[in-house]
Amino acid sequence: MNSTTRAPLSPECTETQARDAQHHLHPFTDTKALNAKNARVIERAKGIYIWDSEGNRMIDGMAGLWCVNLGYGRPELAEVAAEQMNQLPYYNTFFQTTTHPAAKLAEQIAALTPGDLNHVFFANSGSEAIDTVIRMVRRYWEVVGKPWRKILISRENAYHGSTLGGVSLGGMGGMHAQGTPMLPGIEHIRQPYWYGEAAEGQSEEEFALECAKALEDRILEVGPDNVAAFVGEPIQGAGGVIVPPPGYWKEIQRICKKYDILLVADEVICGFGRTGQWFGSQTLGIEPDLMSMAKGLSSGYQPISAVAVGDRVANALIEDGGEFNHGFTYSGHPVAAAVALENIRILRDEGIIEKVGADTGPYFQQQLRERVGQHPLVGHIEGTGLVAGMALVKSKEPKAFFGKDQDAGTVCRDHCFSNGLVMRACGNRMVLSPPLIISREQIDEMIDLILVCLDKTEASLKDLDWM
Amino acid sequence: MNSTTRAPLSPECTETQARDAQHHLHPFTDTKALNAKNARVIERAKGIYIWDSEGNRMIDGMAGLWCVNLGYGRPELAEVAAEQMNQLPYYNTFFQTTTHPAAKLAEQIAALTPGDLNHVFFANSGSEAIDTVIRMVRRYWEVVGKPWRKILISRENAYHGSTLGGVSLGGMGGMHAQGTPMLPGIEHIRQPYWYGEAAEGQSEEEFALECAKALEDRILEVGPDNVAAFVGEPIQGAGGVIVPPPGYWKEIQRICKKYDILLVADEVICGFGRTGQWFGSQTLGIEPDLMSMAKGLSSGYQPISAVAVGDRVANALIEDGGEFNHGFTYSGHPVAAAVALENIRILRDEGIIEKVGADTGPYFQQQLRERVGQHPLVGHIEGTGLVAGMALVKSKEPKAFFGKDQDAGTVCRDHCFSNGLVMRACGNRMVLSPPLIISREQIDEMIDLILVCLDKTEASLKDLDWM
Ligand SMILES: Cc1ncc(COP(=O)(O)O)c(C=O)c1O
Ligand SMILES: Cc1ncc(COP(=O)(O)O)c(C=O)c1O
Repeated sequence: MNSTTRAPLSPECTETQARDAQHHLHPFTDTKALNAKNARVIERAKGIYIWDSEGNRMIDGMAGLWCVNLGYGRPELAEVAAEQMNQLPYYNTFFQTTTHPAAKLAEQIAALTPGDLNHVFFANSGSEAIDTVIRMVRRYWEVVGKPWRKILISRENAYHGSTLGGVSLGGMGGMHAQGTPMLPGIEHIRQPYWYGEAAEGQSEEEFALECAKALEDRILEVGPDNVAAFVGEPIQGAGGVIVPPPGYWKEIQRICKKYDILLVADEVICGFGRTGQWFGSQTLGIEPDLMSMAKGLSSGYQPISAVAVGDRVANALIEDGGEFNHGFTYSGHPVAAAVALENIRILRDEGIIEKVGADTGPYFQQQLRERVGQHPLVGHIEGTGLVAGMALVKSKEPKAFFGKDQDAGTVCRDHCFSNGLVMRACGNRMVLSPPLIISREQIDEMIDLILVCLDKTEASLKDLDWM
Repeated sequence: MNSTTRAPLSPECTETQARDAQHHLHPFTDTKALNAKNARVIERAKGIYIWDSEGNRMIDGMAGLWCVNLGYGRPELAEVAAEQMNQLPYYNTFFQTTTHPAAKLAEQIAALTPGDLNHVFFANSGSEAIDTVIRMVRRYWEVVGKPWRKILISRENAYHGSTLGGVSLGGMGGMHAQGTPMLPGIEHIRQPYWYGEAAEGQSEEEFALECAKALEDRILEVGPDNVAAFVGEPIQGAGGVIVPPPGYWKEIQRICKKYDILLVADEVICGFGRTGQWFGSQTLGIEPDLMSMAKGLSSGYQPISAVAVGDRVANALIEDGGEFNHGFTYSGHPVAAAVALENIRILRDEGIIEKVGADTGPYFQQQLRERVGQHPLVGHIEGTGLVAGMALVKSKEPKAFFGKDQDAGTVCRDHCFSNGLVMRACGNRMVLSPPLIISREQIDEMIDLILVCLDKTEASLKDLDWM
């Protein structure tokens, strides 16, 4: 069915919309505005496509919410889930007890992660993984006798989740403004967003060093001996897919080493193949002491997350830490762990990540730049593997951004949704992160749609007099 | 197989133990101590029984971790999970989108909860529900123009989870001591633990008023206009199953009303039938403004939690709050929501909670008091429905507790585990929370085992010279 014709709603859909409006508070949503128009009911999905209850098919250019790496509708995962649920639907890992799936998944994560990230703590979400990181690095410094090392440094426009720990560590102003006060002992430095924030004529390399220097400056300002860790997404995701310019991570690591500060990679989005390797740290050349992961770990089929912990931190905690008073009822949930294992098996056995690295990732990036980069609305495209962000601009040359109240991203996103494409707006940056199984033909199909939607967006923005 | 004979380990079990020791960091565990003896592998479960990989059968007196309310091995839940996973394994609720299971579950929770708790925000764990509560009540006061109302008051020895928000709000000293600093703006008052903390000869009613008065005193101390909410478990769970004495909650509510302070019931343990009604608030006579729930919501088969929000707070947020910048990738996860719906359907259709309220709950409490209350180690038993706690004491009359380093609870727990019973120790309080489907005969079987284990514990404690 053509996505612009609206089919009559089924009774189930109408009921779901009514229930939803009356009772469901959505995440990151203005409920009043949503209820004024009703939620769209997503009903089924297969591969890279989702269908709403009106029969509209859409390409899911966001893999759910950066998570359905394997694509929708893999029956193996449902089988494994049902089997594990019948065998042992739950048991805790608190009572000196474990389960086969939890232990196997810990081993699997240790094997897949680079370096000596040999130890795994389980949780349910990216946010909980981040809260675990905060508690664990502070605990580490307590255990090794430097309890004054409390401060975590992160970046403006970073996203690290919605728990109090995640909000505080993240650098989203809109989140910091609600439900204050935040957790103490967190510092934010500038983000390495070259296209948006570099000085006129500044090279990427110069800008990379300048942004990394902000870390050293801050460390010196708060006192090196007070800093516990630096935390960063290899590529910022929810901030708009911002790829740090060449040299950034190398310099960040030099500075962390110099002041003996732990380095944490938040791999919630980059992990499990998004960048064409298992972890973003491999693609960006980062050797972290800890790594948080979620999303792609189960391809979103189950809520599960983990923190991979390197030998330095884990050995101190194990040998000298006694009991670490931390954990979640569902840490290592056997069903979620079994599904994650099967997800990893398929990603590996079918060579899905290798294909992203060698074939579909480069093709996607090239096609985007060649075909979409020409569009008058698109100021700049960045990304690697199957993740990309593009800046919508009022004018490319001279470079002019939209004003604060000119929400071009939302206009574009709405056109995408009505035309069969899920593409997300992060402010005026449009972001893409399709399932890793997307083929070259499907990439072409997606880019065709993007061009249609950009044209419609341009027309709308001209109507609004924003261009 | 008799639980004291150790069968030779299967190769899979040995492998799981090795993987676990090398790679798995368990929640709330001294990993070094655990690795010195290896984790017990829980392999399958059915009804109220679990089996480890050595073939030992155990009565699960803790329903996993206070969560498997429906008991293990209900194939309906596995079927629903597989079906939903094949249909739509994931979709987010961020993009003005919803799914049938998420909307239905929101409606269902609104229908089951008392009062005007008509709005539901989803998360994955009890901890995330609590972080949501903290952010939401503070946001509420910002929206209604009293942003200075920031302080949340909770109680010593309360358990509210392991996120930074949960740890800070909880009253567990051992957790506050690790990974400091905590979130600002949280105050703790004394817990209403009559057996352990009342003055000699003080009646339960007097003690209840004294403990509630601690809330009023603290409110006056910090300034009534600075307080956002009071948060409490209807019955403290992880603190050792502490049932507040009669009059406590009534007085707490009077005080909250007097100073216009929001009341939050943390129903993560009490919810979904534990006390013989759907929510502990109903059993304890609490009319909360918000309610956090998890565990029994899915009987632990899936990680899912929710915050039920009353009209007062929800309407303010919806009408005047704009976008609430909060939420989790897996908020309203369709598979977890579908499983929760089926769990609720079974609990309701099979009259499981009514039976706990009218039959097995009272029977359990009576048998415990009659048969276990006599034991010289057991100073006091409290509980209602299918949750109970008992204080282990050095001497009943005159009342004498064990010393700080006399960890009688662990000794007892270890005897239980070796004798086919999972009973948890919270310090020197033993706690029970079996699946709600437990029958009278199984309650008898469990109590027989408890008596055996208490005798063994008594013998061990005498050997240790602690008695
Ligand atoms: C980098 C990063 N960290 C943490 C999170 C939080 O994950 P969750 O929503 O599962 O709590 C996200 C979510 O998008 C993320 O992108
Ligand atoms: C009352 C209460 N609140 C919150 C939590 C935290 O739940 P979770 O472990 O799912 O994060 C618990 C866990 O036992 C609890 O008992």
